[in-house]
Amino acid sequence: MTTEPITERLDDPASARESGRQKIDWARQHMPICAALREEFVETQPLAGQRLGMAMHVEATTAVLTETLAAAGAEVAITGCNPLSTHDDVSAALDAQEGITSYAERDVDDEGYYDAIEAVIAHEPTITVDDGMDMVAAIHDDHPELIDSILGGCEETTTGVHRLRAMDDDDALDYPVFAVNDTPMKRLFDNVHGTGESSLAAIAMTTNLSWAGKTVVVAGYGFCGRGVAKKAAGQNANVVVCEVDPRRALEAHMEGYEVLPMAEAAAEGDVFITTTGNRDVLTEEHFERMKDGALLANAGHFDVEIDLDALGELAESTREARPGVREYELSGGKRLNVLAEGRLVNLAAPIALGHPVEVMDQSFGVQAVCVREFTEEEYEPGVHEVPDALDREVAEIKLDAEGLAIDELTETQTEYMGSWDHGT
Amino acid sequence: MTTEPITERLDDPASARESGRQKIDWARQHMPICAALREEFVETQPLAGQRLGMAMHVEATTAVLTETLAAAGAEVAITGCNPLSTHDDVSAALDAQEGITSYAERDVDDEGYYDAIEAVIAHEPTITVDDGMDMVAAIHDDHPELIDSILGGCEETTTGVHRLRAMDDDDALDYPVFAVNDTPMKRLFDNVHGTGESSLAAIAMTTNLSWAGKTVVVAGYGFCGRGVAKKAAGQNANVVVCEVDPRRALEAHMEGYEVLPMAEAAAEGDVFITTTGNRDVLTEEHFERMKDGALLANAGHFDVEIDLDALGELAESTREARPGVREYELSGGKRLNVLAEGRLVNLAAPIALGHPVEVMDQSFGVQAVCVREFTEEEYEPGVHEVPDALDREVAEIKLDAEGLAIDELTETQTEYMGSWDHGT
Amino acid sequence: MTTEPITERLDDPASARESGRQKIDWARQHMPICAALREEFVETQPLAGQRLGMAMHVEATTAVLTETLAAAGAEVAITGCNPLSTHDDVSAALDAQEGITSYAERDVDDEGYYDAIEAVIAHEPTITVDDGMDMVAAIHDDHPELIDSILGGCEETTTGVHRLRAMDDDDALDYPVFAVNDTPMKRLFDNVHGTGESSLAAIAMTTNLSWAGKTVVVAGYGFCGRGVAKKAAGQNANVVVCEVDPRRALEAHMEGYEVLPMAEAAAEGDVFITTTGNRDVLTEEHFERMKDGALLANAGHFDVEIDLDALGELAESTREARPGVREYELSGGKRLNVLAEGRLVNLAAPIALGHPVEVMDQSFGVQAVCVREFTEEEYEPGVHEVPDALDREVAEIKLDAEGLAIDELTETQTEYMGSWDHGT
Amino acid sequence: MTTEPITERLDDPASARESGRQKIDWARQHMPICAALREEFVETQPLAGQRLGMAMHVEATTAVLTETLAAAGAEVAITGCNPLSTHDDVSAALDAQEGITSYAERDVDDEGYYDAIEAVIAHEPTITVDDGMDMVAAIHDDHPELIDSILGGCEETTTGVHRLRAMDDDDALDYPVFAVNDTPMKRLFDNVHGTGESSLAAIAMTTNLSWAGKTVVVAGYGFCGRGVAKKAAGQNANVVVCEVDPRRALEAHMEGYEVLPMAEAAAEGDVFITTTGNRDVLTEEHFERMKDGALLANAGHFDVEIDLDALGELAESTREARPGVREYELSGGKRLNVLAEGRLVNLAAPIALGHPVEVMDQSFGVQAVCVREFTEEEYEPGVHEVPDALDREVAEIKLDAEGLAIDELTETQTEYMGSWDHGT
Repeated sequence: MTTEPITERLDDPASARESGRQKIDWARQHMPICAALREEFVETQPLAGQRLGMAMHVEATTAVLTETLAAAGAEVAITGCNPLSTHDDVSAALDAQEGITSYAERDVDDEGYYDAIEAVIAHEPTITVDDGMDMVAAIHDDHPELIDSILGGCEETTTGVHRLRAMDDDDALDYPVFAVNDTPMKRLFDNVHGTGESSLAAIAMTTNLSWAGKTVVVAGYGFCGRGVAKKAAGQNANVVVCEVDPRRALEAHMEGYEVLPMAEAAAEGDVFITTTGNRDVLTEEHFERMKDGALLANAGHFDVEIDLDALGELAESTREARPGVREYELSGGKRLNVLAEGRLVNLAAPIALGHPVEVMDQSFGVQAVCVREFTEEEYEPGVHEVPDALDREVAEIKLDAEGLAIDELTETQTEYMGSWDHGT
Repeated sequence: MTTEPITERLDDPASARESGRQKIDWARQHMPICAALREEFVETQPLAGQRLGMAMHVEATTAVLTETLAAAGAEVAITGCNPLSTHDDVSAALDAQEGITSYAERDVDDEGYYDAIEAVIAHEPTITVDDGMDMVAAIHDDHPELIDSILGGCEETTTGVHRLRAMDDDDALDYPVFAVNDTPMKRLFDNVHGTGESSLAAIAMTTNLSWAGKTVVVAGYGFCGRGVAKKAAGQNANVVVCEVDPRRALEAHMEGYEVLPMAEAAAEGDVFITTTGNRDVLTEEHFERMKDGALLANAGHFDVEIDLDALGELAESTREARPGVREYELSGGKRLNVLAEGRLVNLAAPIALGHPVEVMDQSFGVQAVCVREFTEEEYEPGVHEVPDALDREVAEIKLDAEGLAIDELTETQTEYMGSWDHGT
Repeated sequence: MTTEPITERLDDPASARESGRQKIDWARQHMPICAALREEFVETQPLAGQRLGMAMHVEATTAVLTETLAAAGAEVAITGCNPLSTHDDVSAALDAQEGITSYAERDVDDEGYYDAIEAVIAHEPTITVDDGMDMVAAIHDDHPELIDSILGGCEETTTGVHRLRAMDDDDALDYPVFAVNDTPMKRLFDNVHGTGESSLAAIAMTTNLSWAGKTVVVAGYGFCGRGVAKKAAGQNANVVVCEVDPRRALEAHMEGYEVLPMAEAAAEGDVFITTTGNRDVLTEEHFERMKDGALLANAGHFDVEIDLDALGELAESTREARPGVREYELSGGKRLNVLAEGRLVNLAAPIALGHPVEVMDQSFGVQAVCVREFTEEEYEPGVHEVPDALDREVAEIKLDAEGLAIDELTETQTEYMGSWDHGT
Repeated sequence: MTTEPITERLDDPASARESGRQKIDWARQHMPICAALREEFVETQPLAGQRLGMAMHVEATTAVLTETLAAAGAEVAITGCNPLSTHDDVSAALDAQEGITSYAERDVDDEGYYDAIEAVIAHEPTITVDDGMDMVAAIHDDHPELIDSILGGCEETTTGVHRLRAMDDDDALDYPVFAVNDTPMKRLFDNVHGTGESSLAAIAMTTNLSWAGKTVVVAGYGFCGRGVAKKAAGQNANVVVCEVDPRRALEAHMEGYEVLPMAEAAAEGDVFITTTGNRDVLTEEHFERMKDGALLANAGHFDVEIDLDALGELAESTREARPGVREYELSGGKRLNVLAEGRLVNLAAPIALGHPVEVMDQSFGVQAVCVREFTEEEYEPGVHEVPDALDREVAEIKLDAEGLAIDELTETQTEYMGSWDHGT
């Protein structure tokens, strides 16, 4: 019953808690932004009296954010945002904390997944924190009566923000939500470096294959896609980019990558990585052209980018080639290998760990100050950009933590930049 | 007398024209966007009846833009936007074209420079095209009576846009200006690749020194700065970045560059390249810490980034070490080498050629459609972003010209991206 | 009893075999060179009547080599070359093959380790294949009577070859050994790409930390070191190189890396990776200068590069921070994290997989043709370079397998290259 | 008459000397290795009584070497090794030095070129220094009587060494020559960084075109080729490599480059750069497949890599498109642009400067110690590798000059590396 906290559901919660606690401690060591904010929050208790409802990938770094928010005085209820991404031990360790209830459990079925979201909503959150907007959606669909008492929400992902904007355009979003995904601190680091590095490491460790000399086809050249492309090139892969936007395609071309429509790239790729946030990126026509042994992985939010139904129909048989790798054998003996069932490869592969700790620290630093912001300012319903000052605050905390000093404008320089009457 | 067209001022205008024509022909071969637009414009004559006043770096690529606009039916008057960047032969070849009058001449003094701008204004332009906003400024300062009949202006540079926004904030900008610099097509290509490649090539060819193993200090991590940093790293330099903005500093750090305040970087650099758009970036305190033989170059718009007055005072003697290199000998025998008098090194160095042809083609493609836009739509006074559709149009023309096909969204995909009700 | 085959020692050998077989099948799919050679060997049976004694890292790719050699007609006995690198399931799957006996078992103690080598030697090998020369050493030390009937040996590693040459210089090497490590096909691919990629992936997956913005200190700039440095820079790390050889140091400098003595680098590094093949690379004086939280990993053959004894004495306490990470807390609370007990991080970390499959294919392709060579030609005792034709044969097989066509010299070109009488 | 020193042939030798002196002074500032050696040589006069005959590219850095050798007590006669690479002003400045006679003049015809070599030989050199072995060849062909009194020669280039080895194999080389080209200090820096950076800068400045997004076909993946490929990729070009050697082809492939036969690459390239040292690399069949506007440049020693005769026959007309660019118009209007007449582009293009100063310093440092070596040791006729200690000496001088400290092996470490009896 996923409506009960995880602790009630585990055979040996104590050992799970210990294992989870070890993971969280490691993450905490390497999350200086959350550490600095926690120190401040313990003092100032900005979330005293607030109830937080969170649907996130429940692993070590999220736990550090969760604890940071609890330390700020909030009562927190949390569940997963993807059935395959929860670490049960981390969930148990969180659930053992005062002020935190965790419902997240790995490998639950669809019903269990949505029941757990309901269980979080039963806490009547005043602030929501989402990774894919499932919490916002469930509240709007089934618990509109709660909306009046909700100060606001935070959304972590590109996909979630995209869907929230669509909802907002339909006048269907009834409380304010910060597009945390769109902040420089999130997009430039988490998406580029985090998704890039962790997706490649997860693929390498799941397959034991090398990048050098491989042709890697990256579908989508948004922030995630360019992270994946850049890191793959940095491992000596030959990168091919597929795009639908002419300017992004041109950017990829000017970066030195080959740019092709997927119908042509399909025949060239050794590895395919989808990052578009859209569905049907790799479909039957592509599978048919792919080479024997090709690897197919998804680094976008939902498992809709690779059309597995079509692949399943095309295949004569399938088997687990390695943990996390399903081999589809097509007629003629051609084998296509799908990683992590087409789900987010850096989270859902058996040995995947999610984003690196430090990039999550930056993202979650922004989350933490955004949650705080709702208690200080009132926002209209709709999608809001994160106020620049908050994002900048997080950047400054990070530079401090890294011991990096930077220049400051002199008065003369500030004046110069503000004036328009100086000549050639 | 710079108030006369260049042809009147040259000893041998015919040979200048021939040399200029050869340069323009070469550029034209490699500017497929302008070629495609020219073909369209010859047909549609969108600028029939318009008078264009341009202040640009008068070299081959600008000439191709100028001819494209003239081919669209406009009467064009043009002068330089920097006393050192004009190619007299190109100026002469332009002046020989029907519908074009060029006043641009290299090495004119300040008075001559501003007189030439006046000469252009005397044509009573209905549309202005600026590279540094000198034309806009002169019209506002001295010829406000012309403003009523001006449809609008285009501004090419970061610095110009910055100054125009300051002017706009003061309610002092009385006609509409497109911030061409801020378009993706300009910023992502021209600033990053154009400034980056051409600045490094100009420095290499001016000094005959190598990048491999050099410590290159890049001041400013905006679009130009990251282009310079990226290309220098691509030549195996060890790059140090100095910034005043914490997020940009963090971006540079996460890219793998060393980030330091200039006071510390000064002691480490073999080459210093300023790209901030601000003044006093390299000052006395930095000169004092620099190593013997250091190279100082500016890739920002104005020659104010390196404080040459202070350096001159500090120096015991100066001499020309090579064409384009002034050596300042400080007490103790330390030599600092300033390139191109601290002016834009990729334009003002003796053998510099300005931005590469293809990146200018992208920039100038945007200029051309922006000029056309003023004849089709009316805009309020103030700084305007370039309408996205125009920028996108240029990207599509370029992809076509390169023979690059890209994917298109299916209906299902478009619908998916617009919906918000799909689950995990 | 490690003198018995692994099958005798496992609780459930059948399930181990199945798991091992799955791993070997995956590797085999991605090892086209071994596949092509196996096809040839099955036909020609070049090793009929030979007994092979192997001491290698017993994991999936080694298994493919082992099976390839067995398919060539040899009787093979194999054990591990490092107590932590054996996969018991792969060992069991090998042991189940006709013609192969495997003694390799993970986590055996020193005595068990050397007993297993003895067990292999008891098969009276006619050809040895080593990864670290333990087999050669044991035969010379304890079984000199076997030497007369040994055709030759192959040595896989830099370290092993180094030690063999030292032995040869002392006139103490009594049978011929091919320095497989020194072939272009091994050094340029295995060491650079294999060690580089797999070490970084293992560190990332063991720590869940990111490379972007990290200062990575690479000790040693040989083939392994330059692989590690290049791949780390490709993940946006800031790389510092420490070397003892002036030309290698200069190469690193000209590549754009910072070059420092370790005493200075110690204070700058976030991650330290040793690749020198030497001992005492990171010692007490370095530990004392390191930053809190630094990671220490070894990518060299033996676990002597990080002086763990000195670190243990310096530490006030140690604990397992994560699987594969031992945290040493020094006085003042500074924590240093040692990965994989200072053993080869890409093999000995809990989730490490060894080198990527494809690079092992290249190395092992050379091994296979070298073993064949001993049956075709007689070599003098001592260290021998692998005949160039063999190495070239392997390169050609690989290009074929990748579908890569290359140019061929025309007769005129060959003649030109061979002549010396053409002028300027 | 090129048999007279350059001074006799110039209209205004004084002004040439001044201009040449300025160039030499700049180079000297940035050649710390030659500076350090000069200091030593002035003291020790190792070349007292020797006569040096040099055939080199006579530009500023060569002049610094020449002066360094003269300062060591030698009487030096020098001429060019390529009719297009001489700087007359540098030649004049050298000729004005005591102990140096220079015959080098730009743009001489074939007869003048060889006459100048004869003029140098008339000085009866005891040591020769060659860049392309023309001096060695002329002495063997026409002045065998001199050979007895020649201590030895130094050869700078890949091509020269190749031809010397062919000559040696024919037992036709009658005095000892050091293969300076083959030293680590030369190959790893000069060929990779020097040829790479300077060729690209020369092409960029000759054409004013950009590298970003260009497909650059590099013929040959030797040291020069990989330098060109690496630097082009570092400017965001998409690099295609053509090779005849399977291992080099594989190396290029594993680096992430596309590898193709030239017949296929011809249709893809925007820029072609030959670095093979062989003839007929780009021929009729390739010209026919190339794209309109393609650029063809040679970075190999001789002008035989691009088959200009065939191209001339194929073309309907040719014209100078820019200084240093000859446009061949083929039937159908396709234009192919050949840079610098197919000669070494980094030397023979109108604005080319040759290799960067610092990499020449490393090469010439080796030359200087090699010349010294012939006065200290006697060598047999034939091609000799440069003794490693000499090369190492130059590396150490360079590190000193850069202020780079490196680690030293402890006694324990040296002993460890020399031993072979340590266990796992």
